[in-house]
Amino acid sequence: MPSRIVTLLTDFGLRDHFVAAMKGVILSIAPQTRIVDVAHELDACQIPSARFTLAQSWPYFPKGTIHVAIVDPGVGTSRRPLLVEAGGHLFVGPDNGILCELFELTKCRVRHITNKRLFRKEVSSTFHGRDVFAPVAAYLAKGLKPAQAGPLIHDALNDALRAPQRTGRRFWTGAVVSIDRFGNVITNFPSADFPDLGSRMFCLRVGGAVLVSLHETYAELSPGEPGIVRASHGFLEVAVSQASAARLLGVEPGAPVELEMP
Amino acid sequence: MPSRIVTLLTDFGLRDHFVAAMKGVILSIAPQTRIVDVAHELDACQIPSARFTLAQSWPYFPKGTIHVAIVDPGVGTSRRPLLVEAGGHLFVGPDNGILCELFELTKCRVRHITNKRLFRKEVSSTFHGRDVFAPVAAYLAKGLKPAQAGPLIHDALNDALRAPQRTGRRFWTGAVVSIDRFGNVITNFPSADFPDLGSRMFCLRVGGAVLVSLHETYAELSPGEPGIVRASHGFLEVAVSQASAARLLGVEPGAPVELEMP
Amino acid sequence: MPSRIVTLLTDFGLRDHFVAAMKGVILSIAPQTRIVDVAHELDACQIPSARFTLAQSWPYFPKGTIHVAIVDPGVGTSRRPLLVEAGGHLFVGPDNGILCELFELTKCRVRHITNKRLFRKEVSSTFHGRDVFAPVAAYLAKGLKPAQAGPLIHDALNDALRAPQRTGRRFWTGAVVSIDRFGNVITNFPSADFPDLGSRMFCLRVGGAVLVSLHETYAELSPGEPGIVRASHGFLEVAVSQASAARLLGVEPGAPVELEMP
Repeated sequence: MPSRIVTLLTDFGLRDHFVAAMKGVILSIAPQTRIVDVAHELDACQIPSARFTLAQSWPYFPKGTIHVAIVDPGVGTSRRPLLVEAGGHLFVGPDNGILCELFELTKCRVRHITNKRLFRKEVSSTFHGRDVFAPVAAYLAKGLKPAQAGPLIHDALNDALRAPQRTGRRFWTGAVVSIDRFGNVITNFPSADFPDLGSRMFCLRVGGAVLVSLHETYAELSPGEPGIVRASHGFLEVAVSQASAARLLGVEPGAPVELEMP
Repeated sequence: MPSRIVTLLTDFGLRDHFVAAMKGVILSIAPQTRIVDVAHELDACQIPSARFTLAQSWPYFPKGTIHVAIVDPGVGTSRRPLLVEAGGHLFVGPDNGILCELFELTKCRVRHITNKRLFRKEVSSTFHGRDVFAPVAAYLAKGLKPAQAGPLIHDALNDALRAPQRTGRRFWTGAVVSIDRFGNVITNFPSADFPDLGSRMFCLRVGGAVLVSLHETYAELSPGEPGIVRASHGFLEVAVSQASAARLLGVEPGAPVELEMP
Repeated sequence: MPSRIVTLLTDFGLRDHFVAAMKGVILSIAPQTRIVDVAHELDACQIPSARFTLAQSWPYFPKGTIHVAIVDPGVGTSRRPLLVEAGGHLFVGPDNGILCELFELTKCRVRHITNKRLFRKEVSSTFHGRDVFAPVAAYLAKGLKPAQAGPLIHDALNDALRAPQRTGRRFWTGAVVSIDRFGNVITNFPSADFPDLGSRMFCLRVGGAVLVSLHETYAELSPGEPGIVRASHGFLEVAVSQASAARLLGVEPGAPVELEMP
């Protein structure tokens, strides 16, 4: 049997010791663990983007994978460390919304990690990635039962961006969820909810731009002109061929998006 | 026997889910695979730099390694997915020139990956890294024979930068191939083709600068002054001590380079 | 027994072939090695930051780990390649100060790597990461005894930043050691040496700012206002809530720091 996989998703970057200290702690406790870097260059302290990256990564890993997700501006305060069992995977991270998209899954179980014997002997107030989450993940990789980490809770923070709201007979209002490396603007409009978008007139407004064309590939876009793509993550995305749509439109995560289908 | 190595070279960056989704797909199909990150911060959509990075990486890996190389602005269009057998290694990537330096190798075999049973069930039109290349690499890691992926082809795109051309009795014209992290300007002049450069007068022109000195180490360079180094990749390189030669000279990949040896 | 771990700490970045070539060399010599990326986006050529990152990473790894640390502007000159045995770990890197914090450890042994049979056949003058340090690390992972690498030496460069100096009855003078990804300004004042800082009046001066408040968590800081945090690395740190203290104060590594406790 291959050894357990632990994935790491953080905003710690790759110029400091943060990620390596976590890896060292994990390998010291559970030497056989296979550590997989998901992403470490997340925008500092931006929880919604981190949540989107996690949601787009974990389902592709084998069941039994342990996912560590840390974007944690409230480290050291009373926000709780969580362990979530969902979809046959395990997740650890702070109770600040980074894990809350998992809460929609049936059979999702959320625990407050209270078993201090799992932590490093001295827990700093500024680096729980190293002192709390890494050791908990390592013990899970070694076979710790989730129930040994702490009790089930039912009041974890759940502020996931809702689906777009129908705000008129022919209007929906949503938002920008994330901007990717290429500057593509990812909305919260699920492509599957608007199957006839390609065959009907529509317009989508975001950042002052009005978009009326739907494309299947980035290469179809006219150079310099933004268009909508049914992207691989399952949401409508605004893209510009070989350039940054986010910069062109001047939008950031959270910006409103309006769809009209007359 | 150690398990198969799969290397990943992309322009997907480390702030999004792209790389992780590929890793998850690979580990779900072939759990024993050892995934090695080559580089993910390549300039978006710049194929010649990616080709250079691949050429400078793969020969150092053990035979049998599977290399995935994806810089793919044409994803979802008719450009074909390729599997190349060369030098005892396997390579997968799009038919857009990223793999074409391999074509010079004897016994190089190029296949068009047509076996759709290897792909993920739903293939998006914007993320073949996850839906096509990752699963093909994983099945190769599990022992798939290249011939099972698709037929041999002989018309793959081959637009590799040629060696410098002799454009006069004492003149050669070449180009900048890549700029590295330090701002070093890498040309397509093979050092071995100009063995007496250090012992004869010469001048090399690039970006308005005229360079007349050859150095063996970066430390030999005078601060702030660009010089030519016989660099570790085997090509002449323009460097500035502890600063960016590319910024100083204002050049980008593709810029012309002229060598004169009077 | 799990196979040996080799960690990599460099300023090579993740857009070039440098890191991958090292990984390939290691895996070709010692295929079972478990390579762990520590950090590759270190500021180019900045040795003190690299030393700090190394110091904050290695102690968390299991004993027997081999750490490769390369920030090496003097590559190819007469600066020596070193192998250090310290704390039950092995370290390889250039003799330019990057390893010198280890020299304080009892039973630290420093060797000049002179055994050229360990190097790649052709050693370039600009990339010893690939040609010298990677193969030495790989042979150590395979069981090479340190004594086989070269003789003990006692004159390795040791320019580690000293502890802050007491420069008056109530004054200490120190310096900024490193700036992390979040812009936190890390000083060389060990928190443990100033245990009553929270309960007495004090002021700390750095970059023109005068700081008088001590905090346990980043969340305690008032938005936009710099404060001092007893950070997880054991040193006093100047931080701003969700912003860059380094940018706000305009300081870089090496900037002076003064503490007054009246």
